Amino acid sequence: MLNLSTIVRPTLLLDREKCESNIAMMADKAKTTGVRLRPHFKTHQSKKVGDWFKQVGVKEITVSSLSMASYFSDDWKDITVAFPINTREWLDVNRLASKIKLNLTLVNQQSIHLLGSKLNNNVNYYIKIDVGYHRTGLRPENTKEIDLMLNANRSYPKLKFAGFIAHAGHSYNASGRDQVAHIHQESLQKMIKLKSKYELDYPNLQLSVGDTPTCSLMDSFYGMDEIRPGNFTFYDLTQARIGSCRIDQIAVALAVPIVAKHFDRNELIVYGGSAHLSKDYLSVNGCKTFGQVVELSSAGWSEPVEGVYVSKLSQEHGTIKCTPEYFSSKQVGNLVGILPIHSCLTSILMRGYLTLSNEEIDHLCGQPVAAELKQSNSEFSTKHQMW
Amino acid sequence: MLNLSTIVRPTLLLDREKCESNIAMMADKAKTTGVRLRPHFKTHQSKKVGDWFKQVGVKEITVSSLSMASYFSDDWKDITVAFPINTREWLDVNRLASKIKLNLTLVNQQSIHLLGSKLNNNVNYYIKIDVGYHRTGLRPENTKEIDLMLNANRSYPKLKFAGFIAHAGHSYNASGRDQVAHIHQESLQKMIKLKSKYELDYPNLQLSVGDTPTCSLMDSFYGMDEIRPGNFTFYDLTQARIGSCRIDQIAVALAVPIVAKHFDRNELIVYGGSAHLSKDYLSVNGCKTFGQVVELSSAGWSEPVEGVYVSKLSQEHGTIKCTPEYFSSKQVGNLVGILPIHSCLTSILMRGYLTLSNEEIDHLCGQPVAAELKQSNSEFSTKHQMW
Repeated sequence: MLNLSTIVRPTLLLDREKCESNIAMMADKAKTTGVRLRPHFKTHQSKKVGDWFKQVGVKEITVSSLSMASYFSDDWKDITVAFPINTREWLDVNRLASKIKLNLTLVNQQSIHLLGSKLNNNVNYYIKIDVGYHRTGLRPENTKEIDLMLNANRSYPKLKFAGFIAHAGHSYNASGRDQVAHIHQESLQKMIKLKSKYELDYPNLQLSVGDTPTCSLMDSFYGMDEIRPGNFTFYDLTQARIGSCRIDQIAVALAVPIVAKHFDRNELIVYGGSAHLSKDYLSVNGCKTFGQVVELSSAGWSEPVEGVYVSKLSQEHGTIKCTPEYFSSKQVGNLVGILPIHSCLTSILMRGYLTLSNEEIDHLCGQPVAAELKQSNSEFSTKHQMW
Repeated sequence: MLNLSTIVRPTLLLDREKCESNIAMMADKAKTTGVRLRPHFKTHQSKKVGDWFKQVGVKEITVSSLSMASYFSDDWKDITVAFPINTREWLDVNRLASKIKLNLTLVNQQSIHLLGSKLNNNVNYYIKIDVGYHRTGLRPENTKEIDLMLNANRSYPKLKFAGFIAHAGHSYNASGRDQVAHIHQESLQKMIKLKSKYELDYPNLQLSVGDTPTCSLMDSFYGMDEIRPGNFTFYDLTQARIGSCRIDQIAVALAVPIVAKHFDRNELIVYGGSAHLSKDYLSVNGCKTFGQVVELSSAGWSEPVEGVYVSKLSQEHGTIKCTPEYFSSKQVGNLVGILPIHSCLTSILMRGYLTLSNEEIDHLCGQPVAAELKQSNSEFSTKHQMW
């Protein structure tokens, strides 16, 4: 039972039961559809939450930075960094590759050369394919560049081509199952076509896709080897809006104290602002909404309170627009709960969690920053004068 | 001289010279205009940057949370928390008040009672006045509520009324000196009128105002006792847009590595996203702009490169829209600099700084989070069953 009386300042509550249920759902789906679940850990960034994935048999994970890979490298021995390799971090690549099976993401020949020439250990890499999001990656029809990368690779035997990786991030702009299904089918077809072209030369090549909307809503990943959803661990209001989850699957809520009541405009001021929630918002009936309000209890939190939402944020202040009934029911010093628009950024800002059984849970950003800030390495400096 | 070759991942650069010049400018202005400078430390949240304020004779500071007050309480003995008191943190109030001169901000009678009944030590408080921003505070004409607060105060002799505090945050929506001047004059008149009503009963009552636009652009704070600007320490593109600063006064820039080039759309992908910059943006010629791009060198950074800006952000990815010339000049592995839209949030996310002389500088958020997450205090729990 959550002891609300011990919460004195903004605190990110984590409902372990909801979280484990989200994890089990995705693990089941991967099993049923015959793909490997390689969950993305960028949403929770927590060793403890990582343990809950181990309990359902997950053995491989995805992260979005080498710093995150380092954080998880004591507990996980097969990690994919699903972000175009930052070649300036080659010392970290070597350090990690001596310890775990490290899989990187590459999008150009330059990275093949810059990284390949520095490797001491074997590293796998995926070529990033742009299946329609147009953030990064090679267009699937750009086999000329893919061939150039694979040719460049011949000079660097420690760099092993593993397959193609994609992230259909444009599914975040979709609404409902039909739109998500359309994006999903297109992405899969593009990936399968690539595989058929390259599998003769690379018989073990893998296809990896994954984003929370398609992985939540689709029931087939035909032709794929693995899926890499991340946000589903917690979900949030953005995913609920897309249709990826029900509101009651959202596994985190920010508890914040009320510090002021404004009777002339039915607004509560809470200690909890953009420094806690982040500036992400959804447009609801034409109003910017930075979070929805839930009632807190020792059992967790309720469904959102109808008509009550976070209407403004500054650094430490949140403004909650209320119905007259809700406004009357709350006093200065009470706690309210807020479901986040974007759980990844809220977790980064909050740097740790409190479960409903009052357990404190780690987040990468809750660790001291000192060692990370700068990598003063003379070897790096002297070898990289061109930078 | 900044050693760029040691920077391997997103790093927040701090130009100490620009920062100290901003600090000196504001200290001079306070001196010339005859007000006390009580700078707000929520922008930098750094003990080291705090030392630079000491060098120009600053002795009192402002913060926006009790956690921040604790962080600075070894070095500063007179701290104002310019945020409506969060009464759930009364144990911290007592702890701090036993160590420093603590000044709080109150906006209602409930807080007077909730806090007053718990105090072991003297605490000063300001009544927060809403001079037009309409975020929080009492309207200046609401002397009825002010009187009720002062009457309620009579039961709690350790709680000492110090004066009125205001933040003209609507100056952030202004453009140029004239609009800022209008807001400034209105605010000052409202505050002066209040003082004239209450100074007979409270002859030492203080008037405290402060926001970076008015403090940067105005040359008179007639009738005020102190100013509390904060953002001016670093400034940012939001302040430059308002007209509070020149672009070359901005004292922080995020250094990020290029990880991909997209020739079909003149876009660079950098390792640096909303997890580093925050989601704040400005609308420039109808385009969302999440930062402006500068050239980095061992001497710091250049003026913004014309026509080159951060056009999209996801968690770790930044998309930089380039001119063809700029695009051609940059390679994968190079570093680029980004001036932030909102330096406060970028600093919170980055959790530390690197000066141009390669010195690592602290930020409150770069400290371990563990002790802060939950205050499991049985005294608090047992006395606060109503929460």
